[in-house]
Amino acid sequence: MEEIILNTTKHNEIINITDKIQKIVDKSKVKDGICSVFTPHATGAIIINENYDPGLCKDIIKALGVIVPERSDWEHDRIDNNAAAHIKAAILGPSETIQIRNGRLQLGQWQDISFIEFDGPRAGRRILVEIIEK
Amino acid sequence: MEEIILNTTKHNEIINITDKIQKIVDKSKVKDGICSVFTPHATGAIIINENYDPGLCKDIIKALGVIVPERSDWEHDRIDNNAAAHIKAAILGPSETIQIRNGRLQLGQWQDISFIEFDGPRAGRRILVEIIEK
Amino acid sequence: MEEIILNTTKHNEIINITDKIQKIVDKSKVKDGICSVFTPHATGAIIINENYDPGLCKDIIKALGVIVPERSDWEHDRIDNNAAAHIKAAILGPSETIQIRNGRLQLGQWQDISFIEFDGPRAGRRILVEIIEK
Repeated sequence: MEEIILNTTKHNEIINITDKIQKIVDKSKVKDGICSVFTPHATGAIIINENYDPGLCKDIIKALGVIVPERSDWEHDRIDNNAAAHIKAAILGPSETIQIRNGRLQLGQWQDISFIEFDGPRAGRRILVEIIEK
Repeated sequence: MEEIILNTTKHNEIINITDKIQKIVDKSKVKDGICSVFTPHATGAIIINENYDPGLCKDIIKALGVIVPERSDWEHDRIDNNAAAHIKAAILGPSETIQIRNGRLQLGQWQDISFIEFDGPRAGRRILVEIIEK
Repeated sequence: MEEIILNTTKHNEIINITDKIQKIVDKSKVKDGICSVFTPHATGAIIINENYDPGLCKDIIKALGVIVPERSDWEHDRIDNNAAAHIKAAILGPSETIQIRNGRLQLGQWQDISFIEFDGPRAGRRILVEIIEK
């Protein structure tokens, strides 16, 4: 099992981790199987979509901020003031599973694997990667 | 393969199932691999987030009720009157995959695995657990 | 590894792929394990919910269109005019993992596996299916 460690620099941020995960797949020498990507943080999530256009990353963060507004009389805000970040992370989910064929992650041309943080900046955010051979 | 059976007591409810799933992992004696958690109900879902603060559980239910309001002229309500519950379950999804290292689910400090029901109370809700060894 | 190829005919569309996936499970002769379903398209997703009532499929598409409106000054629309489709796909996610017992997908009575496209009509949409034996 392998880990990726990231530092985030903004309150909301999307970081492309596709190349780092493909390198872990390369190192494993697994040709066919599945790759599980999981972040153990309750205000972060793993998403798969286009990361090429920075405008789309801004749109994704903006849309989630409209769906779950930061100020909305959340009960958890009395304790930790980051309820919206938790709710967005719960909706997106902490994991994705990607197939591997011939040693390559089977992502589409416009798909990247990204870590998204809703309560940054944060140092030492972890992403766990496990590969199961077929 | 193992199952967890739950009874829910409210219309919307979040139930922490982390300990029950860790016990199934213990029983399997698998040290490294992945754990698939799946609920076969179309108005329920599996989420991973903080379950420690009951206020946050209320916030998650409240937020999803704003995102998908129960009264909104849904076509399915003419048949079964639970369209919003189905839509919320479809958005969250019925499954999560968690990694296992040294026999432990690799959840973060503020992460729990929970079953969420949107059309309760319901007796006999099932959660299926399958472990794949590395 | 197997693939399903679909053509969509509408801008937003939900297509039931349960029977096609069960046939791939049958062909594999795997009795116990997990089935990973993944679509490599950034404006499509895989969902699991009821597909029997066509009204509910319309409700799901309608609800997502309210959550992420097509016209909302998205930055990505200046480049490709399909930002809302990307955002909806990112929220739902491109994959689901379903357990297999005795050669059968362990779906509930009211659960189907569906491909959902938000930027159609599109020819040649792919769904990748990988089965991991226990």
